[in-house]
Amino acid sequence: MPQYKAPVRDMRFIVNEVLESEKLYQSLPGCEDATEDIMNAIIEEGAKFAEEVVAPTSRAGDEEGCTWSPDGVKTPTGYKEAYAQYVENGWPALSADTVYGGQGLPNLLGIIINELNGTANWSWLMYPGLSHGAINTLEAHGDEQQKQHYLTRLISGEWTGTMCLTEAHCGSDLGLLRTKAEPQADGSYAINGTKIFISAGEHDMAENIVHIVLARLPDAPAGTKGISLFIVPKFNLNEDGSIGERNAVHCASIEEKMGIHGNATCVLNFDNAKGYLIGPPNKGLNAMFTFMNVARIGTAVQGIAHTELSFQGALAYAKERLAMRSLTGPKNPDGPADPIIVHPNVRRMLLTQKAFAEGGRAFIYYLAQLGDVLEHGTEEEAKRADDLMALLTPIAKAFLTEVGFEAANMGVQVYGGHGFIREWGMEQIVRDSRISMLYEGTTGIQALDLVGRKVLGSGGKLLLEFTNIIDEFCAANAGGDNDEFLEPLKAAKDEWLEISMKLGEAAIENADNAGAGAVEYLMYSGYVTLAYFWARMAVVARAKIAEGDGDASFYEAKLMTARFFYKRLLPRKEGLKALVAAGADSLMAMPEELFQI
Amino acid sequence: MPQYKAPVRDMRFIVNEVLESEKLYQSLPGCEDATEDIMNAIIEEGAKFAEEVVAPTSRAGDEEGCTWSPDGVKTPTGYKEAYAQYVENGWPALSADTVYGGQGLPNLLGIIINELNGTANWSWLMYPGLSHGAINTLEAHGDEQQKQHYLTRLISGEWTGTMCLTEAHCGSDLGLLRTKAEPQADGSYAINGTKIFISAGEHDMAENIVHIVLARLPDAPAGTKGISLFIVPKFNLNEDGSIGERNAVHCASIEEKMGIHGNATCVLNFDNAKGYLIGPPNKGLNAMFTFMNVARIGTAVQGIAHTELSFQGALAYAKERLAMRSLTGPKNPDGPADPIIVHPNVRRMLLTQKAFAEGGRAFIYYLAQLGDVLEHGTEEEAKRADDLMALLTPIAKAFLTEVGFEAANMGVQVYGGHGFIREWGMEQIVRDSRISMLYEGTTGIQALDLVGRKVLGSGGKLLLEFTNIIDEFCAANAGGDNDEFLEPLKAAKDEWLEISMKLGEAAIENADNAGAGAVEYLMYSGYVTLAYFWARMAVVARAKIAEGDGDASFYEAKLMTARFFYKRLLPRKEGLKALVAAGADSLMAMPEELFQI
Repeated sequence: MPQYKAPVRDMRFIVNEVLESEKLYQSLPGCEDATEDIMNAIIEEGAKFAEEVVAPTSRAGDEEGCTWSPDGVKTPTGYKEAYAQYVENGWPALSADTVYGGQGLPNLLGIIINELNGTANWSWLMYPGLSHGAINTLEAHGDEQQKQHYLTRLISGEWTGTMCLTEAHCGSDLGLLRTKAEPQADGSYAINGTKIFISAGEHDMAENIVHIVLARLPDAPAGTKGISLFIVPKFNLNEDGSIGERNAVHCASIEEKMGIHGNATCVLNFDNAKGYLIGPPNKGLNAMFTFMNVARIGTAVQGIAHTELSFQGALAYAKERLAMRSLTGPKNPDGPADPIIVHPNVRRMLLTQKAFAEGGRAFIYYLAQLGDVLEHGTEEEAKRADDLMALLTPIAKAFLTEVGFEAANMGVQVYGGHGFIREWGMEQIVRDSRISMLYEGTTGIQALDLVGRKVLGSGGKLLLEFTNIIDEFCAANAGGDNDEFLEPLKAAKDEWLEISMKLGEAAIENADNAGAGAVEYLMYSGYVTLAYFWARMAVVARAKIAEGDGDASFYEAKLMTARFFYKRLLPRKEGLKALVAAGADSLMAMPEELFQI
Repeated sequence: MPQYKAPVRDMRFIVNEVLESEKLYQSLPGCEDATEDIMNAIIEEGAKFAEEVVAPTSRAGDEEGCTWSPDGVKTPTGYKEAYAQYVENGWPALSADTVYGGQGLPNLLGIIINELNGTANWSWLMYPGLSHGAINTLEAHGDEQQKQHYLTRLISGEWTGTMCLTEAHCGSDLGLLRTKAEPQADGSYAINGTKIFISAGEHDMAENIVHIVLARLPDAPAGTKGISLFIVPKFNLNEDGSIGERNAVHCASIEEKMGIHGNATCVLNFDNAKGYLIGPPNKGLNAMFTFMNVARIGTAVQGIAHTELSFQGALAYAKERLAMRSLTGPKNPDGPADPIIVHPNVRRMLLTQKAFAEGGRAFIYYLAQLGDVLEHGTEEEAKRADDLMALLTPIAKAFLTEVGFEAANMGVQVYGGHGFIREWGMEQIVRDSRISMLYEGTTGIQALDLVGRKVLGSGGKLLLEFTNIIDEFCAANAGGDNDEFLEPLKAAKDEWLEISMKLGEAAIENADNAGAGAVEYLMYSGYVTLAYFWARMAVVARAKIAEGDGDASFYEAKLMTARFFYKRLLPRKEGLKALVAAGADSLMAMPEELFQI
């Protein structure tokens, strides 16, 4: 496993210099504690924790995996201890509501801490990570007693949470779900059914687990309009909120998976388990939507986490491993061969990883900031943040996990045959990252959301809100050396609008045309979006160099990586563009019965 | 694991209808036995063997892996028995030299049998598969006694072979290798050193293993010009060729890998092992080059094997799994949702797999035929075949394994979250396929070979030989409905020549420009090459439909898949083209010390 070194300098660059977070948070009511000093200190502490406490658990997590028995699930060596320390240090409460024990710091910092711990060990992070869904649900929809009983313990980290959506026969299409909730005389509900793919659904790291469960009331309408939301705790609570009897929810088995072996993916059986309704009946799916963006941004983080880790491993190897001579003559003439970092193709892979990690980081932190504006801004600010998040979240989730998987594979490729061998740890990153394009909505689902609901569904309005921001940024910085980025950015933005318009026209003709080009449209959008963030970073870096800031090599590297992005990654949109416009005919022409072997 | 059903109809279509193999083999001296009837019968028998004997071993191979002990390596359940049956049925001898016990059938049939067994279980296939390298080496460079003693037993399958090239510090750069060979009084050599990544290097399936080892003589020049080739048998032979004492070559350990768990990847220690020189001293690498194309085509087969298997699994699931409604209205109105094959994005993935599997199959069989012409044709025919193989082999190896990995991942994606779960078998295909872009020369190495040695190294001559074939094909079929394929094919071919020329000019300016665009150039070349084979298949399919051949649905599906390839896969070259021309500046500008974390 590559030894993780937290990219603290880059994080600070984005938080402070590019996104000017202090300025934002000083103007957002309730976020004033987030000064630059505080944020830097938290990043520093979080980096230390991730490097020293979490990272060492990663290998054991993969090798040992979790162990199931009828009594529960044993997590890999070190997981429990690392979690105890995480709770003791107060990390779970960082960005939670102060009324229920949180520290009330911005969501941005929460995302950064997740990135740090997730890069160190994604499987481990998922245990506290899954609590966020439960915390958000309870914050938004729980009643006061539910908040006192459950939310406070989730925020303290004393307990963890899960989200129980999927059933064996339905994942994306939740309207098909069958788990039942029968009202009981005491006001609770008897929950019956089986949920699958419940990450962190059972473990030995906390004394209770708060399951948030989607189920149907007896009289519920069919489909998505008949789904309600329930709290089902692993242990029922006594009236004073203390832990009572074991509830009838049990982990029937855990899945054998390609990766993230350290996280227990559970089949949960609910056999007349006691549940408590959250929010109004039959409105469960709406309630879920309120924080779906947050969950999806959380998964987007996985894209940059694996990209960063794979980059770090590949870079160390590329500097050390000797093979062949540079095409332009020996660079290590006294050695038997040159280090492979001299070869253009190795650099192509390293720079691709670097450009995706750093560009993706800026993209995600920007989204996290929007989340804070949504929560704390004026109504108008919140509306605008909501619009931007609606557009950009499916892009971040799908694009960053797709390129994250590519980047993880490049890390293997830099190692040659050694990349395939477990002991180097590079192949684990590929296996761990593969899930990210599947859960929280597959790439295909994100693409349909982007095209159908967001871009075409808003008549282009959401897209224009974002391209206006690009326009303003270009206008504010144009006319100098930065035009090397701003000119192609403007052109890409214009083209984005153009292909969106054409896709909309094609979709009116035949709805399948939208579905046919959706994934390529999303990937195209990702490249243009990242081009915007790379331009922003380049503009800041250039200004810092001009100011003669001491850290010139950091800023020079930024500028060079920006150039690499524009020269060698942005042009990928040419192939995608052609496919967005290709239409559905060649996909839909073949009758199902002609699909044969 | 998807239940493998051999694509016999498609194999016959390519062998008989597209490549008109009988006509070719009737005109090639020594290949006359390969009539259409014989070839069909062998495909049929091979399919049965792969489906019934080899495929059932795949799951155990992944789950159990190999077990090392100081006494040797135990292969997974069923491997040994399947191999015994393979030998008993005479499969190893199929395309080998009749003088040494082979059946003398074309190389094409050997490749087809490898595809069948490799799709059924690639890890298993590698045991007999690795023998081919040893067989080819001995056929070409062994003396008569070596042939009698070793070659005959490899051809019968009684023994298996390996190729021992890699050492811990050198893979692609074999000039760095250190294994030593000291001449002994009896004419043998004492071999000392350690080899790694020796596939099938130790196992319990055959009573002896013939290692072909690269090593240095005491007075050998440095680098690649000082490498010699040795036979090092696991068991030494008595004078009559019977098995004698155990030789001092031992498997020190086997690697824990991402995939192909059923194949033993060995560290082999040679401690004064007895070796025998093959061919002239210091010419070992040249000797290796004589069959490097064959080995690389063998690996290209892995690309289509995993594509086909993943396609079969994905197709079955896509027809069964219900989720959401078609964008154009319910297609399964009586069910709770539509089967996911109605969704354009699912079809996009299925058709991509199908187009790569079938197009890649035609490409590989064409190369295999060229191998037969090289061996049996006139000097002029052989020269032309050699030229075409030189150009097309790196494309086939790298392109088909890269898209094979993509296709394997699409199979996972069609399954959604279930794709990540081991029991479905789809993720195993991803893990097994990942090695294919690494061994037998990584994609980067293939790209350098293509650009440096083949295209630019021949001054464009090799490329023109192939594009002339495309021109002739287009000319012969132009002017009718087939122009839907021939027009874009001609345009792509022209563009291929143009970007090749430009890349050559850029390389003269700066050699790194060639390295910078090499991988994208190779992938570009792959799409154009596949476009040629898809056009050939479409032309035949259309003619068959016009003839009113009974099997219309097969040919209709071919035409539709060809259209899909031209509409949705060939346009990927637009992005690649832009990158071939992007040059090295953005890659090489960053000094090594600025690559930091």
